[in-house]
Amino acid sequence: MGSRDLFARIDTPAVVIDVAQAERNIRRFQDYADAHGLKLRPHIKTHKLPFLAKAQIAAGAIGITCQKIGEAEVMADAGLTDILITYNILGAAKVLRLAALARRCKLAVVADNSAVVDGLSAVFAQEPAPLEVLVECDTGAGRCGVQNAEEVVALARRIAAAPGLTFGGLMTYPPMRDEAKVDTWLSQAQQALSAAGLPCPRVSSGGTPNMWRAHDITSATEHRAGTYIYNDRSLIKAGVAKPEDCALSVLATVVSRPTETRAIIDAGTKTLTSDLLGLSGYGHVVEAPEARIVGLSEEHGTLDLSATDWRPEVGDRLRIIPNHACVVSNMVDSVWLLQNGTVTQESVAARGKIT
Amino acid sequence: MGSRDLFARIDTPAVVIDVAQAERNIRRFQDYADAHGLKLRPHIKTHKLPFLAKAQIAAGAIGITCQKIGEAEVMADAGLTDILITYNILGAAKVLRLAALARRCKLAVVADNSAVVDGLSAVFAQEPAPLEVLVECDTGAGRCGVQNAEEVVALARRIAAAPGLTFGGLMTYPPMRDEAKVDTWLSQAQQALSAAGLPCPRVSSGGTPNMWRAHDITSATEHRAGTYIYNDRSLIKAGVAKPEDCALSVLATVVSRPTETRAIIDAGTKTLTSDLLGLSGYGHVVEAPEARIVGLSEEHGTLDLSATDWRPEVGDRLRIIPNHACVVSNMVDSVWLLQNGTVTQESVAARGKIT
Repeated sequence: MGSRDLFARIDTPAVVIDVAQAERNIRRFQDYADAHGLKLRPHIKTHKLPFLAKAQIAAGAIGITCQKIGEAEVMADAGLTDILITYNILGAAKVLRLAALARRCKLAVVADNSAVVDGLSAVFAQEPAPLEVLVECDTGAGRCGVQNAEEVVALARRIAAAPGLTFGGLMTYPPMRDEAKVDTWLSQAQQALSAAGLPCPRVSSGGTPNMWRAHDITSATEHRAGTYIYNDRSLIKAGVAKPEDCALSVLATVVSRPTETRAIIDAGTKTLTSDLLGLSGYGHVVEAPEARIVGLSEEHGTLDLSATDWRPEVGDRLRIIPNHACVVSNMVDSVWLLQNGTVTQESVAARGKIT
Repeated sequence: MGSRDLFARIDTPAVVIDVAQAERNIRRFQDYADAHGLKLRPHIKTHKLPFLAKAQIAAGAIGITCQKIGEAEVMADAGLTDILITYNILGAAKVLRLAALARRCKLAVVADNSAVVDGLSAVFAQEPAPLEVLVECDTGAGRCGVQNAEEVVALARRIAAAPGLTFGGLMTYPPMRDEAKVDTWLSQAQQALSAAGLPCPRVSSGGTPNMWRAHDITSATEHRAGTYIYNDRSLIKAGVAKPEDCALSVLATVVSRPTETRAIIDAGTKTLTSDLLGLSGYGHVVEAPEARIVGLSEEHGTLDLSATDWRPEVGDRLRIIPNHACVVSNMVDSVWLLQNGTVTQESVAARGKIT
């Protein structure tokens, strides 16, 4: 049965995952990491699905990355055993959950300030095993992270001295296409740590747009990539994926054809989201790449057909590669898995885990 | 207990609803509608909460509006009895659900093309009672809708002749601040229907930014507004609400202070969404309106403090009025209700209903 016939059994809008393509994407980047002696720690935020996290481990990843405790809890429930949470964990409610989680898997977190370190230590000082804490470094992306090697050393020292914690190394979410600068930043931090007598067991970098240059950050020991498993329109634009490499698409139906060059589809921000990531328009229409998704409201997508001869009818279906795959996974309670000639529904177990 | 103490019991990020404020917003617009002899049919997409839909009915609304069958099913389950679904319903799976729903509440839908009408008729011809169908009109907003009075008459005729359907009138989601043009459009359509011998029992208009001018669309018999129950930053910008009128806010924690003028909070697109609605920045910070939310990633919000003296510390909490309240309701499994001096968690029963 062709995929078009299979799709006919799915009500729209729907998020469809081509599992074989996801597996090819996993394999391809794992091979790259292996070839460069780089450990791979995939970020599960993209799929939020335990079975794909397990596929990443089976392919050779050393563990997974989560952004939230709630995501990590779901993954630990499913049997994942080595988790890095790349987030400043603050507040008694969260740190107590973290302690419960640390008792059942190998866990590490990050910190970029002393309030986080002190809050973790207050709880983990009473725990049977210490918690590994990496120092998050702002190597140019301008989000979280300490600002220079001096701050790295000061915070690493505080972690190393804190009851219940061990200093695990450095973590950064780097700016894209700036590998040399990031490498210099991290190398200087490592030298400063070494001079201070603080061993730095691992250096964790990340990102998908930059993934084929991950080995240029020579100081990194592991790489966290998320979106590579699905790819999306932002990665097509970035030149690291082609439409046929994309494993996640949104299946939509044309519900209205008000004018010759306007088509309205049943996918709006509730499936595609408003994420632009610097792009123009809200997705790539597989059936007609020249059709532009010019506007979204919550349940409607507006297509401008003036640049294409494609004239879909009401009821026709189309597939859209979204600008940003990760946020689409978070919009739906379940996705449809296309694999082995069938389609099945799969709950997005780690969806909506905001704490 | 002050609301600040109550908030301390809530883990962040969290969506908080000030129920008394929501009730004031309901009352204020219901009073306006009553004063102008306009029926009010609130759109539940904003809150997705049955108890607030019931509060709207108790205040005088004649029924509710939903965009999706899944939302209407949740509301009917909760006891709501009069529902308009303002969407082209297509495909056997959906129309069969619609038929089941029509057996347990007063239901109406819209159509802007003959494929939708024929699909509805094919199922409802076998049902015990006919389905009311309104013709959706594009009065200038450029989304769905027939384009002129001639198309209105042709489609109304098709509905009236279709087994299992009755023609219910006209529906439009109008362009904002263009009441005279919308009124002319609808009046001409009504005249054409009258000339064709087709009675037009109701004319349904909608929108919140334009809600205080709803009576200027003199041909409308009912008005559908959604966001007015919560208000949001887009409505503050539109001049129809003040920050203190906003009943929904996002409670967030400062998790990082990497530089003097940068603060990172734990609310990103997974709570605030990327919706800009023409605004600059991603929300209004109640504690410091001059602080600008300049960027969001999925779990981080980046605040630029350079225009304010406010210097929050790591662990401090703040409240954000989002650009667009409706989409925020859709991001979370539950909201926190602040009422009668307590906070309680409430499931967002109609969240994520995309079909």
